[in-house]
Amino acid sequence: MTATITTALPTVNARIYPRGGLDVLSRDEVARLRDASTGMHDLLRRCALAVLTSGSTSDDPRAAQELYPHFDIQVTQQDRGVRIDLDNAPAMAFVDGEIIRGVAELLFAVVRDLAYTAMELAPGGSQDLESSAGITDAVFGLLRNARILHPTDPNLVVCWGGHSISRDEYVYTKQVGYELGLRGLDICTGCGPGAMKGPMKGATIAHAKQRRNRTRYIGITEPGIIAAESPNPIVNHLVIMPDIEKRLEAFIRLGHGIIVFPGGVGTAEEILYLLGILLREENAHLPFPLVFTGPTASAPYFEQIDKFLRLTLGEAATSRYEIIIGDPDAVAKRMASGIRKVREHRIAQKDSFYFNWSVDIPLEFQRPFAPTHEAMAALDLHHGRKPHELAADLRRAFSGIVAGNVKEDGMRRIEAHGPFEIHGDHDMMQSLDALLRAFVAQRRMKIAGEYKPCYRVVA
Amino acid sequence: MTATITTALPTVNARIYPRGGLDVLSRDEVARLRDASTGMHDLLRRCALAVLTSGSTSDDPRAAQELYPHFDIQVTQQDRGVRIDLDNAPAMAFVDGEIIRGVAELLFAVVRDLAYTAMELAPGGSQDLESSAGITDAVFGLLRNARILHPTDPNLVVCWGGHSISRDEYVYTKQVGYELGLRGLDICTGCGPGAMKGPMKGATIAHAKQRRNRTRYIGITEPGIIAAESPNPIVNHLVIMPDIEKRLEAFIRLGHGIIVFPGGVGTAEEILYLLGILLREENAHLPFPLVFTGPTASAPYFEQIDKFLRLTLGEAATSRYEIIIGDPDAVAKRMASGIRKVREHRIAQKDSFYFNWSVDIPLEFQRPFAPTHEAMAALDLHHGRKPHELAADLRRAFSGIVAGNVKEDGMRRIEAHGPFEIHGDHDMMQSLDALLRAFVAQRRMKIAGEYKPCYRVVA
Amino acid sequence: MTATITTALPTVNARIYPRGGLDVLSRDEVARLRDASTGMHDLLRRCALAVLTSGSTSDDPRAAQELYPHFDIQVTQQDRGVRIDLDNAPAMAFVDGEIIRGVAELLFAVVRDLAYTAMELAPGGSQDLESSAGITDAVFGLLRNARILHPTDPNLVVCWGGHSISRDEYVYTKQVGYELGLRGLDICTGCGPGAMKGPMKGATIAHAKQRRNRTRYIGITEPGIIAAESPNPIVNHLVIMPDIEKRLEAFIRLGHGIIVFPGGVGTAEEILYLLGILLREENAHLPFPLVFTGPTASAPYFEQIDKFLRLTLGEAATSRYEIIIGDPDAVAKRMASGIRKVREHRIAQKDSFYFNWSVDIPLEFQRPFAPTHEAMAALDLHHGRKPHELAADLRRAFSGIVAGNVKEDGMRRIEAHGPFEIHGDHDMMQSLDALLRAFVAQRRMKIAGEYKPCYRVVA
Amino acid sequence: MTATITTALPTVNARIYPRGGLDVLSRDEVARLRDASTGMHDLLRRCALAVLTSGSTSDDPRAAQELYPHFDIQVTQQDRGVRIDLDNAPAMAFVDGEIIRGVAELLFAVVRDLAYTAMELAPGGSQDLESSAGITDAVFGLLRNARILHPTDPNLVVCWGGHSISRDEYVYTKQVGYELGLRGLDICTGCGPGAMKGPMKGATIAHAKQRRNRTRYIGITEPGIIAAESPNPIVNHLVIMPDIEKRLEAFIRLGHGIIVFPGGVGTAEEILYLLGILLREENAHLPFPLVFTGPTASAPYFEQIDKFLRLTLGEAATSRYEIIIGDPDAVAKRMASGIRKVREHRIAQKDSFYFNWSVDIPLEFQRPFAPTHEAMAALDLHHGRKPHELAADLRRAFSGIVAGNVKEDGMRRIEAHGPFEIHGDHDMMQSLDALLRAFVAQRRMKIAGEYKPCYRVVA
Repeated sequence: MTATITTALPTVNARIYPRGGLDVLSRDEVARLRDASTGMHDLLRRCALAVLTSGSTSDDPRAAQELYPHFDIQVTQQDRGVRIDLDNAPAMAFVDGEIIRGVAELLFAVVRDLAYTAMELAPGGSQDLESSAGITDAVFGLLRNARILHPTDPNLVVCWGGHSISRDEYVYTKQVGYELGLRGLDICTGCGPGAMKGPMKGATIAHAKQRRNRTRYIGITEPGIIAAESPNPIVNHLVIMPDIEKRLEAFIRLGHGIIVFPGGVGTAEEILYLLGILLREENAHLPFPLVFTGPTASAPYFEQIDKFLRLTLGEAATSRYEIIIGDPDAVAKRMASGIRKVREHRIAQKDSFYFNWSVDIPLEFQRPFAPTHEAMAALDLHHGRKPHELAADLRRAFSGIVAGNVKEDGMRRIEAHGPFEIHGDHDMMQSLDALLRAFVAQRRMKIAGEYKPCYRVVA
Repeated sequence: MTATITTALPTVNARIYPRGGLDVLSRDEVARLRDASTGMHDLLRRCALAVLTSGSTSDDPRAAQELYPHFDIQVTQQDRGVRIDLDNAPAMAFVDGEIIRGVAELLFAVVRDLAYTAMELAPGGSQDLESSAGITDAVFGLLRNARILHPTDPNLVVCWGGHSISRDEYVYTKQVGYELGLRGLDICTGCGPGAMKGPMKGATIAHAKQRRNRTRYIGITEPGIIAAESPNPIVNHLVIMPDIEKRLEAFIRLGHGIIVFPGGVGTAEEILYLLGILLREENAHLPFPLVFTGPTASAPYFEQIDKFLRLTLGEAATSRYEIIIGDPDAVAKRMASGIRKVREHRIAQKDSFYFNWSVDIPLEFQRPFAPTHEAMAALDLHHGRKPHELAADLRRAFSGIVAGNVKEDGMRRIEAHGPFEIHGDHDMMQSLDALLRAFVAQRRMKIAGEYKPCYRVVA
Repeated sequence: MTATITTALPTVNARIYPRGGLDVLSRDEVARLRDASTGMHDLLRRCALAVLTSGSTSDDPRAAQELYPHFDIQVTQQDRGVRIDLDNAPAMAFVDGEIIRGVAELLFAVVRDLAYTAMELAPGGSQDLESSAGITDAVFGLLRNARILHPTDPNLVVCWGGHSISRDEYVYTKQVGYELGLRGLDICTGCGPGAMKGPMKGATIAHAKQRRNRTRYIGITEPGIIAAESPNPIVNHLVIMPDIEKRLEAFIRLGHGIIVFPGGVGTAEEILYLLGILLREENAHLPFPLVFTGPTASAPYFEQIDKFLRLTLGEAATSRYEIIIGDPDAVAKRMASGIRKVREHRIAQKDSFYFNWSVDIPLEFQRPFAPTHEAMAALDLHHGRKPHELAADLRRAFSGIVAGNVKEDGMRRIEAHGPFEIHGDHDMMQSLDALLRAFVAQRRMKIAGEYKPCYRVVA
Repeated sequence: MTATITTALPTVNARIYPRGGLDVLSRDEVARLRDASTGMHDLLRRCALAVLTSGSTSDDPRAAQELYPHFDIQVTQQDRGVRIDLDNAPAMAFVDGEIIRGVAELLFAVVRDLAYTAMELAPGGSQDLESSAGITDAVFGLLRNARILHPTDPNLVVCWGGHSISRDEYVYTKQVGYELGLRGLDICTGCGPGAMKGPMKGATIAHAKQRRNRTRYIGITEPGIIAAESPNPIVNHLVIMPDIEKRLEAFIRLGHGIIVFPGGVGTAEEILYLLGILLREENAHLPFPLVFTGPTASAPYFEQIDKFLRLTLGEAATSRYEIIIGDPDAVAKRMASGIRKVREHRIAQKDSFYFNWSVDIPLEFQRPFAPTHEAMAALDLHHGRKPHELAADLRRAFSGIVAGNVKEDGMRRIEAHGPFEIHGDHDMMQSLDALLRAFVAQRRMKIAGEYKPCYRVVA
């Protein structure tokens, strides 16, 4: 007989009155918000806990749930607005009984975005989520409601990369962030640890040295991963998009340039999503600075990625990205000059600075992909397809593998039905396999026990 | 044969890019805004011209139209947002070819509010305009969209009174505004000249002396009168409500206290609207500072008003207002202390500071009143009715008389069908008649030629 | 037997703790400040009263003294700083027992500048007041201590003109101020009523319309006239220079351009001081926009001034000024373009934006002139002298006449010894006489009873 | 034969125009500043280099000098102000050819403070540096000139401790800084690495989370140690005091509470200086929160310090400090509550918030101590003396040992004349010796080669 002894962690009960957008509501809106928050209580509870433990050292999603089993959150109505009641909330979010202001802001963001999704983007609601334009409008609406859209000069660099990277790589992401910050650039990431935290940390020091005050460290997440990748403590703008695809679209329409650090399957998914879009003829004219970078020791990683992309999407794909190894200064310079071109292009095209309306994202990239065995088997990974179509399917393949590896739903499916079958040309499948095994070898994927692939390649 | 010789006034053509709320729009919203602006082109043109001639000495509504006959405005679409094209616009709104920033802001407010009304408050739209709560929501929505609602401490004094007042009275309104401003109070008026400008002017000097920076001079108007009462140059927040009734509701839900200066029929309408609401049992507990004030010479004016109110609404009505003659300091002190009580009451009731949800305004006060001969004849002005019901009908009587006197529609009806017949008890009708004749004698009504009453009293 | 009945005006006792420069003092400085304030108690009392009655309608210097006979001010020491005690101070400077913030700031300015003069510019002190460079340094030091010097873009227009001008002229000064304000220009005047107030008032409205927040309305005065020309309520930066000559130098080194409105003897003195300096060979290259302007009805006034200047200083003098009649827009445009040239010149010369080091002001213009009979008789007003030397003596002649007319010392001298004798060429003397008689006829000089010239021309 | 191969580090030449206090100077001041900077060229060059390499990983003072042998700085005059010319300056202070704004500010601080010392505090100048009050005035004057004195609420915590501390201790200083920052407290340190950097770093994260914008990270140094303890990159206010004693006085008059982390001889000197002052009868009533703290592993360190203080200064000394081990939260709470008491005391005593005038610092603590062999031998370290007198001599003993160990002058004296002789009671001397040997054992002193004490105890 074994007993699990958990040290009871200190908790706090608190009532909080939201500000900044949640503070000027009509009575009707308040009632709808309260009702919506009831309907999504579990989701709200999980996201709130992620935010309230932001900055804790552990990055095990379930840890927070287990450490604070009695935590609860209620959104209640008052004539003058809403109130958030927290029960048994982590004491680390408070100081002398008062919630830390930045944590409170992230908490309001959670309520704001989940409520917006529940109230404005519900299936069967007024928003058309079946057309490409309708989905883009939904992304726009949620970002505007989150007050992320400002008509200021383009300066937002999106940084992608793994949450589980080597110390060497982490230090490098900080250095790149520092060089970006020195040049007045703001940072947007997936808002978790690792490559999502390092650039923000480096930029913080640089912004302080440059005496910049109104800095933006934007974290964009979605309900499926916020618990696993709790916002790091530097994030000062948090957005929770409804699903993976809208999150990816948000990155691309918000960012003025993108840097990719070493990462795992998720990062590969992001690269394929982006290249699939940029390789479309409709986007051929569009400036979009894209740099793959890491410390010298990571050079082989990018060589392998590069090889995989050439093999699958063709040599043309390489025109869309640049690989810079071990040179943070060069990366930042490249971004700064690339963003200057983006700025000129937006002015010439009369496109807005704050939202990239011009980039063409077709419906096939926007529609949520549910990785069932059927859907995975239906992927068509053969040479001869148009690069962007192939990229879309490759993106789905990686997305499915992520789910099979770490998402609850996906794992259950694999247990029930065995590994996914993926069909494709022999060389492509081999290359895919090699890439994934390398990720495992480099510990870029969180695997408990021995690694058993959740897929089977069928050439 | 006669010839009208008009001195050609200097004009300017310009393209303007809106800011502050009109600058972060989706492509769909831009298209709808452009379409809406086409549908309401005449209205837009008239309101825009009023704003572009803001601060001109003339206050003849038609003057602006005649002086700038070739003026035109178009809202056009651009990928990145909307653009406003002005043709033959009054040069007085520009300096060295650039539009004056404050004028541009008022212009954006016109586009913003007319578009909001056209797009969100259209009959048959999603907003329920048949219920009391629905109308209040519409008022709230428009004000929030106009960024008028801030969760700051209560400090907004609404000032009502005539646009055509004596020099003596005008100076007095400035003195009251000065005393209000010294106490950190902001001003909201109907945004025209006379008693709507004086308090703002006085407050401006006082705010400057108190080194207050973020001051609010809110002007609330509606399409029917903006041309006649063009925003004075001090207004820095302009709101255009869709009709008289919503404008009156906006005053009452926004203001933390109300001061009434001498005025004409319009002011009488406002007093009756307000008292009709405050005398309801539902509002009996509600603190609402209300002061009637003017210089010593205006004492008889308020005596007559007071007498009329006692006669019609009963002695109880006097508990809701206070008359202070010739003492700006006392008026401001009374407002400041009254607003402190409002603040405490809002906190106790958990009502918001920025919008008075608690005050009960029934549907009969919210429904637009169209002053036809039938409607006027149907008014029931007899003793024995509940004060607030009688007040509602008296309010309509004054509203109808305003229309019959100066509004285009109303004047045409009178020409066609003769004067309105108003039914009521003899003493009440006599008192009404005396009041209106006094307004004429005191030149509080703009009458061209000899005054011919547009109504006939039927006891 | 007559009795003067004075209505007792309401007064207030108050303790005030200074801010902004007077709030971070060493214990030693506090002690010296207290001692200095004791030594100059009368002066301090007089200046403080002028400030506390700022904005009152009366502009009779002695009125304030008579209306508040029991007013007193003491600067006392506290460990943590200084405290200002006011006894029987005018209630108009307070609201609900608290001093109006802007008035308090002017009061601190009085203490600050008088203390600086007493402590830093005392005769025999460390500051060299005998050399030209030393005096300029004293002017600089006092202005810097008053926090008037900011390294921002040149935009300061000095406006000179009479405190006693016609309604028509006053309205015109407001219009010019309005046009200057629309163009983002700040205003500096002698800080009294009339032409010193109008431009500030007009600029206030324009700055509000242009949404400019950090505006500067600088008033520069000196102890001899502050009582007579109490700061108008718009002044938000007040400086008290030690004497007339340093005040004039402050205007010229601070201002980026100067506008002269109609005025009396004082204005004539200012014109001659300025032209005397600009006509020096050393300053020939210096851009310095200078416009004489007034409404159409004031054209003859400037014709006469122009004629007098041509006669005395020669035709060359006219190259330094421009006369614009009845065109506020043109005046403002001229200033704006002139100041752009000043900006370029400062950059080219590496001179500062906030203080005109380059303009050469010789000692003869800096040394205080005491208008004794001997000094007046010694003036040398003959053709053939260098224009700038003649201008210096003419300036002194006008300065002496101002003193003889209205300053206490000067009036006593005239009573004791009869009118000043002024020697000069016949035509020059005649022209001078004509000018002065015109000032009297136009009521530009405050004269009690019949005008008796305080001077006698000796050709 | 050996060859030193130095990698040539990248350098930049630049011209910089100072701001913030150095930008509004009179021509005379500019000339004096240029002359002063010439007179102190070596000192200026050394301090400037320390600032330009701020944040570099190395903390060897001579490293910077050797790495940038051709670096030079000149302050030159321009009509409009001063210009700083940098030759062969470290490229790390620049980004794309432009100096990093924060580094530029530190550079201006160097020029500003060295110039102030040279011009205002020169021996034989106007400042009385022989009296206690005169020295305090000098400290005040320099701090005010550095714009460090603000009349805001007390919130400045001084953190002392070693530059060479264990990783464990460093992390702890960050945690304490984080807890201080959460409570809105600002940080002041000696501005180098280790315990001088950790608290600032922790506070930075906390301030960001609390959304505090105007934070102060004050570094106070002196010419003798700035090169060895180059400002860490977080310092945003740098002050260079003329000597050790004025630096110590600045800490005590500026700070509202003091935290001592583990450190070496320098920290011991600081503790004795502070206790010597606080133990004076004159300061008995003065609240002054003082906490010694470190992680659990550092408990023995503070036990030894505590024992030494009890032995030398008596049990009474312990009433002035509190030892808290391994509890950052408790430390911050203790500081916050202690500072609230300081605030109340200042208000009650009418002492200023920004400068502790009340604390009595006698001349013996203010006079620079030159550690010659004679001076060291004259120290009187015997029981029976008044605690504060003994503390003063103990402080000097430690100061002399620091000099003998690491300062150029001191080391040369030791080489020439052998170790200092220190006289004192046997137990005290033994305890002193034990303390110093412990510092060596714990690597708290930078010693090259085997440790040879620079002193000899003579009981």
